[in-house]
Amino acid sequence: MSNTFGTIFRITTWGESHGKAIGVVIDGCPSGLELSEEDIQHELHARAPGKMYTSPRAEKDKAQIFSGVFEGKTTGTPISILIFNTDADPSAYQPISHLLRPGHANFTYLEKYGIFDFRGGGRASARETACRVAAGAIAKKILRAQGIALFAYIAEIAGIASTRPDWDCHEQLQRDIRLNPVFCPDPHAAQQMMQTIDEIKNAGDSVGGIIECVALFLPSGLGDPVYEKLEAKLANAMLSIPAAKGFEIGSGFQAAEMKGSEHNDLFYLDEQQKVRTKSNHAGGTLGGISTGMPLIFRVAFKPPSSIRKAQETLSIEKESSTLTFPEGSRHDPCVAIRAVPVVEAMAALVLVDVLLGSRLSRV
Amino acid sequence: MSNTFGTIFRITTWGESHGKAIGVVIDGCPSGLELSEEDIQHELHARAPGKMYTSPRAEKDKAQIFSGVFEGKTTGTPISILIFNTDADPSAYQPISHLLRPGHANFTYLEKYGIFDFRGGGRASARETACRVAAGAIAKKILRAQGIALFAYIAEIAGIASTRPDWDCHEQLQRDIRLNPVFCPDPHAAQQMMQTIDEIKNAGDSVGGIIECVALFLPSGLGDPVYEKLEAKLANAMLSIPAAKGFEIGSGFQAAEMKGSEHNDLFYLDEQQKVRTKSNHAGGTLGGISTGMPLIFRVAFKPPSSIRKAQETLSIEKESSTLTFPEGSRHDPCVAIRAVPVVEAMAALVLVDVLLGSRLSRV
Amino acid sequence: MSNTFGTIFRITTWGESHGKAIGVVIDGCPSGLELSEEDIQHELHARAPGKMYTSPRAEKDKAQIFSGVFEGKTTGTPISILIFNTDADPSAYQPISHLLRPGHANFTYLEKYGIFDFRGGGRASARETACRVAAGAIAKKILRAQGIALFAYIAEIAGIASTRPDWDCHEQLQRDIRLNPVFCPDPHAAQQMMQTIDEIKNAGDSVGGIIECVALFLPSGLGDPVYEKLEAKLANAMLSIPAAKGFEIGSGFQAAEMKGSEHNDLFYLDEQQKVRTKSNHAGGTLGGISTGMPLIFRVAFKPPSSIRKAQETLSIEKESSTLTFPEGSRHDPCVAIRAVPVVEAMAALVLVDVLLGSRLSRV
Amino acid sequence: MSNTFGTIFRITTWGESHGKAIGVVIDGCPSGLELSEEDIQHELHARAPGKMYTSPRAEKDKAQIFSGVFEGKTTGTPISILIFNTDADPSAYQPISHLLRPGHANFTYLEKYGIFDFRGGGRASARETACRVAAGAIAKKILRAQGIALFAYIAEIAGIASTRPDWDCHEQLQRDIRLNPVFCPDPHAAQQMMQTIDEIKNAGDSVGGIIECVALFLPSGLGDPVYEKLEAKLANAMLSIPAAKGFEIGSGFQAAEMKGSEHNDLFYLDEQQKVRTKSNHAGGTLGGISTGMPLIFRVAFKPPSSIRKAQETLSIEKESSTLTFPEGSRHDPCVAIRAVPVVEAMAALVLVDVLLGSRLSRV
Repeated sequence: MSNTFGTIFRITTWGESHGKAIGVVIDGCPSGLELSEEDIQHELHARAPGKMYTSPRAEKDKAQIFSGVFEGKTTGTPISILIFNTDADPSAYQPISHLLRPGHANFTYLEKYGIFDFRGGGRASARETACRVAAGAIAKKILRAQGIALFAYIAEIAGIASTRPDWDCHEQLQRDIRLNPVFCPDPHAAQQMMQTIDEIKNAGDSVGGIIECVALFLPSGLGDPVYEKLEAKLANAMLSIPAAKGFEIGSGFQAAEMKGSEHNDLFYLDEQQKVRTKSNHAGGTLGGISTGMPLIFRVAFKPPSSIRKAQETLSIEKESSTLTFPEGSRHDPCVAIRAVPVVEAMAALVLVDVLLGSRLSRV
Repeated sequence: MSNTFGTIFRITTWGESHGKAIGVVIDGCPSGLELSEEDIQHELHARAPGKMYTSPRAEKDKAQIFSGVFEGKTTGTPISILIFNTDADPSAYQPISHLLRPGHANFTYLEKYGIFDFRGGGRASARETACRVAAGAIAKKILRAQGIALFAYIAEIAGIASTRPDWDCHEQLQRDIRLNPVFCPDPHAAQQMMQTIDEIKNAGDSVGGIIECVALFLPSGLGDPVYEKLEAKLANAMLSIPAAKGFEIGSGFQAAEMKGSEHNDLFYLDEQQKVRTKSNHAGGTLGGISTGMPLIFRVAFKPPSSIRKAQETLSIEKESSTLTFPEGSRHDPCVAIRAVPVVEAMAALVLVDVLLGSRLSRV
Repeated sequence: MSNTFGTIFRITTWGESHGKAIGVVIDGCPSGLELSEEDIQHELHARAPGKMYTSPRAEKDKAQIFSGVFEGKTTGTPISILIFNTDADPSAYQPISHLLRPGHANFTYLEKYGIFDFRGGGRASARETACRVAAGAIAKKILRAQGIALFAYIAEIAGIASTRPDWDCHEQLQRDIRLNPVFCPDPHAAQQMMQTIDEIKNAGDSVGGIIECVALFLPSGLGDPVYEKLEAKLANAMLSIPAAKGFEIGSGFQAAEMKGSEHNDLFYLDEQQKVRTKSNHAGGTLGGISTGMPLIFRVAFKPPSSIRKAQETLSIEKESSTLTFPEGSRHDPCVAIRAVPVVEAMAALVLVDVLLGSRLSRV
Repeated sequence: MSNTFGTIFRITTWGESHGKAIGVVIDGCPSGLELSEEDIQHELHARAPGKMYTSPRAEKDKAQIFSGVFEGKTTGTPISILIFNTDADPSAYQPISHLLRPGHANFTYLEKYGIFDFRGGGRASARETACRVAAGAIAKKILRAQGIALFAYIAEIAGIASTRPDWDCHEQLQRDIRLNPVFCPDPHAAQQMMQTIDEIKNAGDSVGGIIECVALFLPSGLGDPVYEKLEAKLANAMLSIPAAKGFEIGSGFQAAEMKGSEHNDLFYLDEQQKVRTKSNHAGGTLGGISTGMPLIFRVAFKPPSSIRKAQETLSIEKESSTLTFPEGSRHDPCVAIRAVPVVEAMAALVLVDVLLGSRLSRV
């Protein structure tokens, strides 16, 4: 009951990391949108493991569109995308298949379903996020057509903070981010991050990080009050990403230490006679509805649970044991990096849903 | 399209702060639950304004059950609860009715709906949360019947942190929290908070805060993977509360600075032969499903936007103006305090939904 | 889990026939629609019992709007409507409160919920439909503003068929139908129906009927393929009305005896260069989407289960017994008559939902 | 927005008749159910075209399970099933690709989506129903495990009625039905039907029919009151099947001519001390909830719109034209026959959803 996301622009994902394929069905995409497999491939590439600072698993993800597109355009019917699993070797997990893995969901899946699928995490695998990225690629096309710029980047890894970039040249900025090995807009911080990740990886350990995501040129008046606030939908979307531990919008947790007179963003009229605010502690929404100022939020990611270091644990039979990953098993030292395009994709899915829904608010 | 919350145990709320009444319809409550108006009144009391450190508005909220209960028990049909508005005086807002209020949703409602209901915030008013608390009272009864203890408290106000309380004596702790004027379990910190709030209030200003919420004795195996992770539902619920700016579970934003070997919670068998973890950085879930360890999360609240200090702003006609609240208008200096029972209520609604849903996971 | 209807224009109803009140919350109504209590009262009047050929219960239903309307217009927030129960006398049901009522839902409610609310049917009471009519009044206003004419009438009672009326003068026709005591457009048939109902009523019995519903000037392209076909949504809506036993669209059950060459509606271009069909066996949809031809469907209603004649039955304790309604208990001899405005209301709710949803199908 | 069906046991289907494949994702299937591709293949076989009295297209549908099953059992994660299209030849439709097809959805899809996918009907193709049957196969396994017998059969074709079979020997009956070329339980009527179909087919025409569906041993207390009545869900499911024009439960349209004293089913206690009714005009539900008596409903199907006879029509450019299907194009003379397993599948999906939902009705 939990593999569908969205209300109007709705995705359903399926597939385990070690089955034949994984896939996503997108329902509610308007007809007439130009769409090709390259559009999706481009986004998948950013997320793909096999890069230096992400997992060395070489999946060569290739998205295939099975339905919903005719003569290069969406038809309004469901778009089914498949990514075949070419590099799955469940036998690598055999030696540890009877062990609870600290920080990992194999214990809770067992508690919920009574079944222990030891093959690399099943639905809890980060591989599932490839389908989110594939669907997000379509959502991002719709946003771009509306003039909305959406991008995410690493704001912090292992305590090393990136300085907030200048969004004015957002097109160049987006290119720079994608070219940086750790998706960090601050080259100096990026250098430090890479060095720290190398050290931690060599020590058989892993590390957490924070992603910041920005949407520029979002119209005002998007989103819904009360239970479907834009920030509530974003929080939901972000905490659904594996390893996410926190979400904040605008001032976020800092707001707790601020006074109202500091925090309130004062309204003024800009040169285009558009209502804007002098500061943006709100982060782009008030009462769940977009203000027209930049949408800005941050997501915290924990260090990946799979590490080379030996760890005490229990077996399924509840006997004390030690978990040591077999030689050749592949792990991300910092899942936050690969999560950058996933955060973008989930944000795009939320925004498209809200954008399409905004057509309904007035007679 | 946004006034319903929940999937199985589902609430729909309605009503403006200055209309005849506000109300909530609860659908999906199982039959056979003992329920009285006192059960609801008890929770409403904690949230009610009129206390020293919350808004001095004297609403004397009284919940009336209009349907769904027969001979003291729920029947399985919708429970409709009304709270009549006895103290509504929209004329107080007349002098500022044409002004955009900094940090307030009246601007975004205008952008979305094209209508400017100046009477104290309409649906964006904190008053709407009384309905959440009323519905949450029912959810909490169901949780208690399952042996689950759920409670929230102030963890920080204006930079003053409370020490984390000992949960072992949770019943006494809950009583202590409710008796404390700022719902803070640390009497020393509470004293400082009250003093600071007094100062800030006297200066015509307001202040933010952080709430921590804990659920003890939650069974393992609750929640769903992927898009309906327990933490994703909680994040969604919390960011739907007016003035919430952030959510974190377990280690939260701290996780970004931790290593995997520190963060992973190691499994062991306790004296009752129950699987537990030595630490609880996860905060009670793994992969979206409960571990059986305490569920613990935090929510950041911004300072209330309505302050006595004069603020520059625009009128609806987009002319520069100054907002000064009229004499006698009533404001919370710290909305986080009143939000404590709201956080509890929303958490209870999420947990009951997930608890009922857990009956569906196996054949 | 079953008291909400609709996706975009969504209603939630609550209340038992013998509680304080019944009510409906409408969520998703666009802002800016003019709405008054008179708009709703007008529709309620048609449905109200107290007329000669319907139940003599004199409820004097009066709808009160509690929220969602400001200065005569909808605000986009939930519209809460209450109808207080002024004529509820549960004691009338006391003598039969321990008996299963043949053809009535008190048995199945007991089986499902384990609770036996003997007061006149609880949620299974026809009284619940007043809330559908109240919500439908708003939906009908939206449809009228789009130029859509929607109306229902009695097509058959007790085997007496009405001739299908001429829709060309639909405004006059609608007035005539509402003035006719059995909502039948054929005065001659109406006369026979009334006489038959009188006889059946005097014999302590009841009778069934068929309602036909028509929507004119519906744009083409409304509705969705596959599982949310317009006809599937209508069938769902109609079979949700108490006592409904069947639904057919266009040719309906007659289609089973027809050949394709007879049934296919041939396309042609009318004088306004609009695509139309020569016949309308389809009844206004093809593949779940509106054709632009009149939408036409029929709903069969069973005879009301509550009759004066004595009936063999069982008690809750499963002992043989005889059910005889107490003197003074009030019954509809033909529920189909009162169901005419209910059919209209449910159809209006479906059409508004689909109309608002149609804004989403193309980029 | 319309390719998902169900609430708890939820299917999402995708794919066009002339794309690479069609497929279905089943979400919410409990874990621990034994499931193999053979289970699905068995049901697909009954629906498959290529038989004498259905379309001669030889698709050799083969279902492949891509996810959600591990070591022969469901895991609780989504089950993705693909059926590759092996026999798709869209070029056959080229000569008529610019014509509106009478009685067919290509006109309404064009009106809704602005796109004209001429390849054999796109999502409106009967081929889409193969996915319903595949998903229904899983639902039927769950029902069988609960002791529920569900089966459908032809009740009427071209005005030739089948006598209602004796359900006592339902296992033998089900086998007989599946072996009969027109799925009719009355061999004599079946013979007449086949002869009539042959004649109609030879004349280049098609014919309609009625399917009856029965569920035995359904527990009482299943289903929901008000908007999610069991009969409302079934009506919705049935009218979502291509070519369906009507639905009736129990007495159905006959009820309109009956008196209450005839229609009411009188309760009695059977030898097993179980509450039953002497007649079953209700058709197995009262007020939307199952009575424990056989569930029985009927669905009317129109004659297929694709016939060999020439038909007047319009082109996309709105010019008068004549539609003649090209030589070698393949058409069902009577879609009702192939719809028998589809009706069963949709009924099974509804019943499983309701069965799982019934776990939620009491504390």
